[in-house]
Amino acid sequence: MTYAANPPMTPTITAFERSPDGGKGLARDMRVRWALEEVGRAYDVRLLSFKAMKESAHLALHPFGQIPTYEEGDLVLFESGAIVLHIAERHAGLLPDDANARARAITWMFAALSTMEPPIFDLTIARLLERDEPWYEQRLHVVEERIRKRLGELSGRVGDADWLDGEFSAGDLLMVTVLLRLKGAGLLDQYPNLSAYVARGEARPAYKRAFDAQLAVFAAASTS
Amino acid sequence: MTYAANPPMTPTITAFERSPDGGKGLARDMRVRWALEEVGRAYDVRLLSFKAMKESAHLALHPFGQIPTYEEGDLVLFESGAIVLHIAERHAGLLPDDANARARAITWMFAALSTMEPPIFDLTIARLLERDEPWYEQRLHVVEERIRKRLGELSGRVGDADWLDGEFSAGDLLMVTVLLRLKGAGLLDQYPNLSAYVARGEARPAYKRAFDAQLAVFAAASTS
Repeated sequence: MTYAANPPMTPTITAFERSPDGGKGLARDMRVRWALEEVGRAYDVRLLSFKAMKESAHLALHPFGQIPTYEEGDLVLFESGAIVLHIAERHAGLLPDDANARARAITWMFAALSTMEPPIFDLTIARLLERDEPWYEQRLHVVEERIRKRLGELSGRVGDADWLDGEFSAGDLLMVTVLLRLKGAGLLDQYPNLSAYVARGEARPAYKRAFDAQLAVFAAASTS
Repeated sequence: MTYAANPPMTPTITAFERSPDGGKGLARDMRVRWALEEVGRAYDVRLLSFKAMKESAHLALHPFGQIPTYEEGDLVLFESGAIVLHIAERHAGLLPDDANARARAITWMFAALSTMEPPIFDLTIARLLERDEPWYEQRLHVVEERIRKRLGELSGRVGDADWLDGEFSAGDLLMVTVLLRLKGAGLLDQYPNLSAYVARGEARPAYKRAFDAQLAVFAAASTS
């Protein structure tokens, strides 16, 4: 398979007009922004209201009515993991050249989204939607235990390495964005090596540019 | 990137010695078996007890102590999604040749695992572990509503098509295995096009071979 060395088309991504996270960079457009910044690719952003996300024009792009989407010429993608992989496959900087190392980096992309994110996202959902349920505290305990188990296993694997497998990769990019959801929840503090790992991700210039870009959207929406 | 046309190494995957699903083919080795059968690749299986899965020899292969793993020469992978993608990238039959169609098929792989599977797996977990909780019925209702929302959206996208996007792909393979968890739960019956979609997956000769292979393990364990 061959790709054009310099894709001519500026991609357009979608993001929340008013992110429910208050500009903390936890919405899933952040992953795509970060990936595009890492590879030095310019992009346009189309902002969507919650209402517009559920309308037919957007559902034609994203069957689950979410953000982000990624449009590049005739190509329309959804799912932040797939979009990050698409970017990583077509530009240097997010996947190793060696075929085996590349397969391992992709394994960490799936581990971030399939193994780590579900219980962590459950915690977000529980705090948002289940706070008034009579069983909220018990449920919170169950979810936190599941997260601790995964954090312990991940911490054991990371050890004192800088990144999950050699150089920084798209696997680290997704893992850091998933772990960032735990910031302030106290859970991450129990694993100093994971806290340091997340901080290394946040310290990357590309992360900072992406973070500032999504924060600017939130700031503009707040003053409008 | 180039790969050998005929990889010389027979890969080894891991699977449950005694699958907790009673041979229903819901354990995640099924996805990998099915993918290998679709591309006509032979494989070896190493069976693991629940105890062995948490021991250091296996944790060195799989940091989260689960199945399946995939070993091929020096390469060790975990995460069923990553393994299926690895197989699909190296053999014809699971991803389209056209670059855009290929990116869309990979999008459906992530959609299966990141969007559809989490609430569906939550239902499995709730039924297994939360049945005796005083809040079980309420929680079940919440989880089922989340699943129905996703099934409705997926059903709307699938329409009367045979597969998610053109020819059968690794995206369909993962989506069918995720939806199969709902068999017998009544939820899928409300979407005749999704029931038919799942049945089309189950009717594939490669699916049947993979299913029979995992069932044979369960049957052998039951009589031992």
